[in-house]
Amino acid sequence: MHKFTRNLLTEWRKLKLPFENENIIVAVSGGADSVSLLLALCELREAKKLKLNFIAAHFNHNLRGAESERDAEFVEDLAKKLEIEFFGGIQNPQFKIQSRKDNLEQAARIARYGFLLNTAERFKAYGVLTAHTINDQAETFLLNLIRGSGAAGLGAMKTIRKLNENSEILLIRPLLSWAKRIETENFAREKNIEFRTDSMNEDEKFSRVRVRKTLLPLLAKFNPKIVETLAKTAALLQNDAERQAADSGQQTGNLILKDLKVLSKTALYKTLRRWLEYNRDNLRRVDLKHIEAIERLIFSRKSGRKVELPGGETVIKKEGKLFFEDIKVEKSRLGN
Amino acid sequence: MHKFTRNLLTEWRKLKLPFENENIIVAVSGGADSVSLLLALCELREAKKLKLNFIAAHFNHNLRGAESERDAEFVEDLAKKLEIEFFGGIQNPQFKIQSRKDNLEQAARIARYGFLLNTAERFKAYGVLTAHTINDQAETFLLNLIRGSGAAGLGAMKTIRKLNENSEILLIRPLLSWAKRIETENFAREKNIEFRTDSMNEDEKFSRVRVRKTLLPLLAKFNPKIVETLAKTAALLQNDAERQAADSGQQTGNLILKDLKVLSKTALYKTLRRWLEYNRDNLRRVDLKHIEAIERLIFSRKSGRKVELPGGETVIKKEGKLFFEDIKVEKSRLGN
Repeated sequence: MHKFTRNLLTEWRKLKLPFENENIIVAVSGGADSVSLLLALCELREAKKLKLNFIAAHFNHNLRGAESERDAEFVEDLAKKLEIEFFGGIQNPQFKIQSRKDNLEQAARIARYGFLLNTAERFKAYGVLTAHTINDQAETFLLNLIRGSGAAGLGAMKTIRKLNENSEILLIRPLLSWAKRIETENFAREKNIEFRTDSMNEDEKFSRVRVRKTLLPLLAKFNPKIVETLAKTAALLQNDAERQAADSGQQTGNLILKDLKVLSKTALYKTLRRWLEYNRDNLRRVDLKHIEAIERLIFSRKSGRKVELPGGETVIKKEGKLFFEDIKVEKSRLGN
Repeated sequence: MHKFTRNLLTEWRKLKLPFENENIIVAVSGGADSVSLLLALCELREAKKLKLNFIAAHFNHNLRGAESERDAEFVEDLAKKLEIEFFGGIQNPQFKIQSRKDNLEQAARIARYGFLLNTAERFKAYGVLTAHTINDQAETFLLNLIRGSGAAGLGAMKTIRKLNENSEILLIRPLLSWAKRIETENFAREKNIEFRTDSMNEDEKFSRVRVRKTLLPLLAKFNPKIVETLAKTAALLQNDAERQAADSGQQTGNLILKDLKVLSKTALYKTLRRWLEYNRDNLRRVDLKHIEAIERLIFSRKSGRKVELPGGETVIKKEGKLFFEDIKVEKSRLGN
């Protein structure tokens, strides 16, 4: 197995993503990043490491005429070759005329994510994978910094989050925390698979392109590892923001599994402790092994399981949620 | 009064700095920033807005031969002209040979702050003023970002902090949050006062000079207000870090006034609430007006005053600290 593929598997485990029985949408533009992600997933499927059903989804933004069409055909052909289901979408051609030049990127992004959400819902998918790399993260960090951002904006992209507020479907970026763009390009070349180059990625009218082509090279003169440094800074700030949210929020009611799954370990443990404290009035005799057992419950693929707590209470997983049950209370209710 | 001077007075009030009966050290290199700070302080003294005794302190780093000597003479002459006491220090000439090139800046900084601390102690000063501007803050932010920093480092310089951990003397940067370098230069020119230009400020072997001369101009092409934007980001992150510290720390014992004075309003209020909660077991009937009364107690120049709390407890200011006294407890002790 290629090192790139092994790294992806390591990240897959770290993110506690499922290994079987799920539909997973892979957003594929046809560029080196998304082509390499798709190739590595196929390697993992062939090696029986992942028994998942991948669907390659491509959204044709229809902004570059024949070039856009060739991208769509390229992705469809690649999917066929890799024996992966293909699902395509196309932007209304009026879109370009309606969107002003200055918000074209933003409008295109909204349309693309709308398509991905619809596709994921149609396939009842566990989540959508995008192939953002550590370079994309550094660029996003710098763009947010230049625009003016507090810690929340500087945290840049999250490795895993809900696709939107009202959806249970996850948006997962399994390359974001480790893969450099040069690695995706090399991986595709070593596998002898072509990829497309988007002419917009060279167009300096876009701030992101200027960040990539002028700002990052200048910063690299100060620190050759600037991309990794900025991505790490983003992760640290994201962590701070999460910890602060966990510090200030009190957890009541039932906990939704998908919400818990996107938290860092620190934030998850804090959230669980707060929730138990609220339901039990205290944390007496609750220790790390109980928290870890609940963590396993959250990420295990089986449903209907439970964790018993000292004092006779139970945490039960059902219907995508964690429920807190106090047997003593239930018994006394039965007695009435 | 010049606008620059009025802005300084506004900041002075905002930082709740004293208006009379104190010695204040002003670090003056001879550059536009520190010369303008000194000039504005003199204007405020002449206008009887500040009845403070300022001492101009200059440290000769002895790194640029005759140029260094002329800087020292320039500051001494300026102080004489402005009728301000002058206090000079000089670096041992062996220093340059002992310090390796790559840590020369850092070593010079340590020596300079050591001199400022000694000077402040000698004059029993309230604090030391440095003339760092919003431009210095943006440069520090970028240097820390390039090196790799979490929120703490990205917070960059604080407007007010203790000069060192063991000292009661404050380091105060009254230009940091508002003055741009161009404003200090213009102010000095309008007052017809010369200033010195440090040749090291042009030497691109220093990262800070390269940040100023290449990185910031490139960033300004993306956002013309980049200096203000970065300084604001630093302030936001500093605030986050302070809030987090206030969230996680429990305040017990007596509170030291100098520690409280360097906190932002949010962090101060949180710290006071925690402290009262610890001492009273709860915050019942304590509301904003009590917290504000304690705030006034902290910043008032009179000593020996107190604030009464509902329930009969008192917060007393003495010997540079806040004490919590519960009269009921005292009475019951007397009864034993």
